[in-house]
Amino acid sequence: MSSTPQVEVVALSGGVGGAKLALGLQRTLPAGALAIVVNTGDDFEHLGLAISPDVDTTLYTLAGIADETRGWGRAGETWLAMAELERLGGPTWFRLGDKDLALHLERTRRLACGEPPSVITADFARRLGVPSHIFPMTDDRVRTFVDTSEGVLEFQHYFVRRRCEPELRRVIIDGAHLARAPAAALGLFAAPSLKAVLICPSNPYLSIDPILALQCWTTALRSARVPVIAVSPLVGGRAIKGPTIKIMAELGIATDPTALARHYAGLIDGLVIDHEDARWEQSCGIPVMVTSTVMNSLADRERLAQETVEFAQQLRPMSSRRTA
Amino acid sequence: MSSTPQVEVVALSGGVGGAKLALGLQRTLPAGALAIVVNTGDDFEHLGLAISPDVDTTLYTLAGIADETRGWGRAGETWLAMAELERLGGPTWFRLGDKDLALHLERTRRLACGEPPSVITADFARRLGVPSHIFPMTDDRVRTFVDTSEGVLEFQHYFVRRRCEPELRRVIIDGAHLARAPAAALGLFAAPSLKAVLICPSNPYLSIDPILALQCWTTALRSARVPVIAVSPLVGGRAIKGPTIKIMAELGIATDPTALARHYAGLIDGLVIDHEDARWEQSCGIPVMVTSTVMNSLADRERLAQETVEFAQQLRPMSSRRTA
Repeated sequence: MSSTPQVEVVALSGGVGGAKLALGLQRTLPAGALAIVVNTGDDFEHLGLAISPDVDTTLYTLAGIADETRGWGRAGETWLAMAELERLGGPTWFRLGDKDLALHLERTRRLACGEPPSVITADFARRLGVPSHIFPMTDDRVRTFVDTSEGVLEFQHYFVRRRCEPELRRVIIDGAHLARAPAAALGLFAAPSLKAVLICPSNPYLSIDPILALQCWTTALRSARVPVIAVSPLVGGRAIKGPTIKIMAELGIATDPTALARHYAGLIDGLVIDHEDARWEQSCGIPVMVTSTVMNSLADRERLAQETVEFAQQLRPMSSRRTA
Repeated sequence: MSSTPQVEVVALSGGVGGAKLALGLQRTLPAGALAIVVNTGDDFEHLGLAISPDVDTTLYTLAGIADETRGWGRAGETWLAMAELERLGGPTWFRLGDKDLALHLERTRRLACGEPPSVITADFARRLGVPSHIFPMTDDRVRTFVDTSEGVLEFQHYFVRRRCEPELRRVIIDGAHLARAPAAALGLFAAPSLKAVLICPSNPYLSIDPILALQCWTTALRSARVPVIAVSPLVGGRAIKGPTIKIMAELGIATDPTALARHYAGLIDGLVIDHEDARWEQSCGIPVMVTSTVMNSLADRERLAQETVEFAQQLRPMSSRRTA
């Protein structure tokens, strides 16, 4: 992982939705040609463990060991530790499977030994047989908080414990102005082999914004010499996964692709939207590809990945981006 | 657990061997009449978890959920986390089962919240349905190190990782002179209901000495107004469990009950030894009861527990103890 040769696509991603497209990219690109920069604003400490939900989902998905039905955690998981924890009166609102626990224990151990998250993640990916490069967006501490109708909540308390029920007023990304990207990840933008930068169909406000809150990532996108494409997580006023629509409504944002185009304005050269949103194609103000963005099957993911990369290839980079 | 009414027996104990007698005591005494003071010199931090092996063994044994065959950990245990930890390149020399993990996670969480170990242990005991009172010997940090032919080793590294193979030269009990006993545990010695104090057949050097290294426990034993009895862990020059004999040999100590009588001199009023060691009965210099000390069955444990308490009742306390 010290060298990252022949990276063709860098994808910015959150958890589940983004990881689906990442898997499609991994399966259609040559081995080692995909690098994913993953949100770590969701990271938190629980039961003394360092948990990095989006990184873990990406690792598990790209290793082919994720539970696709449940949408998070490991396939073939067991829950004995959780049952005992409940018996002992411990907190069980964040479900940690027995297999999943091992990864958190080992990450926590290595962090305590001084290893940076990016090195730990790269080693986990290697050991789990993942051919792609997975980077946490930073090795520094960044934490997403949400200002809600119930006050300021830590992200996982809002997202998992309170199931996004409190009304969202503002997303606070703490530590972002001090955080730096892992040098090896930023360096990918200079790779001659690079063909495209993608923003995965993750929640723009909760999953992608924490990455873009780091000045270095915004600058990297603005100055990228290859096309930057976002894939919309919206489908006809609904979201493929998670609370994106509820959050957009609470923030007073229209739930159509034009809002995404505005949100990512100056950062992207093109937008991929679903057939159901085709009527907004001309209103986005940037090149748009209309296709089916719903990824139920593996074939869906591969097709969307391939189409998105092809779409990027057709675009002239920096046509709609300001240079930093 | 805030009040400890009607405690009849206080037992000092290490792990497996001591817990066997403790179970016999629990089953023959009225509910709540047994209090066990458990060695915490073995405690260590592993994978970021606070592990207290002797306390855990005592909890599991007295809750009837210990694995009797393996001799440590939980019955019906699974090992998925351990298998994944190995896959991720983590340390697997200290085996942590999936059920067992929950207890360490919850202890670690509560310690981080500022709860003392004695409060956590009492709550675990209550939740696991243990009718006896289990006290860690101290809420303070005491750590057993061993000076060996391979240098000074942390206890678990010597005991588990190196399987007691390095030659033992000296046991170092770090932090003992600053540590205090939990007040509620020390207070038991003043209970009018108290009938006897027992030293369980645990390793005298590795399991009992760390308790006695605390001045308050030595003083409590010396000044106890009830008989203090030790049960020998030796059987005809062998040990019932663990490396006691190997260690005694390495320390240049004769492996017969007279060595125990000398070791506990000034602290005990009587000694319980096995039939195989009957020839040493007259050489111990204190009252001795000869019986079968091997505890294979539950009936063995109950019988030995009952005989030991009866033996204590026949003795005049402080006959051989110096007052502090």
